[in-house]
Amino acid sequence: MSDLTALRDAMREFTAERGWERFHDPKSLIVALVGEVGELCELFQWLPSGEAAALAGEEPLRTRAGEEMADVLLYLVRLADVLGVDLAAAAERKMRLNAEKHRA
Amino acid sequence: MSDLTALRDAMREFTAERGWERFHDPKSLIVALVGEVGELCELFQWLPSGEAAALAGEEPLRTRAGEEMADVLLYLVRLADVLGVDLAAAAERKMRLNAEKHRA
Amino acid sequence: MSDLTALRDAMREFTAERGWERFHDPKSLIVALVGEVGELCELFQWLPSGEAAALAGEEPLRTRAGEEMADVLLYLVRLADVLGVDLAAAAERKMRLNAEKHRA
Amino acid sequence: MSDLTALRDAMREFTAERGWERFHDPKSLIVALVGEVGELCELFQWLPSGEAAALAGEEPLRTRAGEEMADVLLYLVRLADVLGVDLAAAAERKMRLNAEKHRA
Repeated sequence: MSDLTALRDAMREFTAERGWERFHDPKSLIVALVGEVGELCELFQWLPSGEAAALAGEEPLRTRAGEEMADVLLYLVRLADVLGVDLAAAAERKMRLNAEKHRA
Repeated sequence: MSDLTALRDAMREFTAERGWERFHDPKSLIVALVGEVGELCELFQWLPSGEAAALAGEEPLRTRAGEEMADVLLYLVRLADVLGVDLAAAAERKMRLNAEKHRA
Repeated sequence: MSDLTALRDAMREFTAERGWERFHDPKSLIVALVGEVGELCELFQWLPSGEAAALAGEEPLRTRAGEEMADVLLYLVRLADVLGVDLAAAAERKMRLNAEKHRA
Repeated sequence: MSDLTALRDAMREFTAERGWERFHDPKSLIVALVGEVGELCELFQWLPSGEAAALAGEEPLRTRAGEEMADVLLYLVRLADVLGVDLAAAAERKMRLNAEKHRA
């Protein structure tokens, strides 16, 4: 499921089926997202900087890192949906702005 | 650009064209990601919880929120690439695990 | 003002004088705290890990880092006050637990 | 232990006794701090905003919140020490700047 729109729809359906929309106000989703970012941080905090990429390429860290990154992504997609923001369009626009700001 | 693979490739190219790979170790990318999460937080921190979704639906907050969410997404996509993690597969797997954990 | 109780009282008075208690619910304070953590991150994100301490010892980074750390501390102190948590006692207790958990 | 200088000295001694100084570069400490902020977030994420302060005043949430806030404080104090920043002086200065910026 590499498509952000498909992820958004899947998260929307998942939330509705459980009646969880009432928990998904923007601030709560942001706090939840930071919780997942924190779990990602805990995987990496004491790894030597120069070796972190290599170490994270080995199991079980690789799968764990993928899970935490997935959690961050899912809350981000859900937050965008709640705010009515087109995340894909926003990312495309931002990449264009970045390319203008930092000429290659 | 709603496809995570396309975003990954665009970020990879953007980084390579500027010779920025040397800055993109996992810890630095995580710290940068938290910086963007912080900017997202600053948009919402003092909004009353019950009104945040409505307020964020209006300009200029809507566009600003989209920009910060895009930044979080782009660093997340880049981090996954550096770690060799398939973010789309991880998200799909995590949604399946969530559905098993929380039966509708 | 190195005493946490004095900081708590100063923040409490500052907030009351401006009638800002109504903004200081726990979630809003946490979101604000993350905003400040994000600003701290932005100062360090692209510094090479091995040189960050030396670079941060020079101006203007040193003063900037102090400002962002102060902001994090002030929101943390304020959050503890709102929650009725004795932050100094909690820190002392945690240090004792850490010493038991990780024998020297 | 309500004094920031005493906390700094206790953390410095704790770190030295275990030979952990080599792990405490600024970026690693920031990543660890975000990990603790994330744990704090996880305690609050789904609490209704209006009830969070009351709920957090009850056990076991009160003690748990104190522990996570203590962890954030201890890493912040340690980071300041590593950077050579006088956290108490920075907080006092920041309160003075805030008072000038936001006249009561």
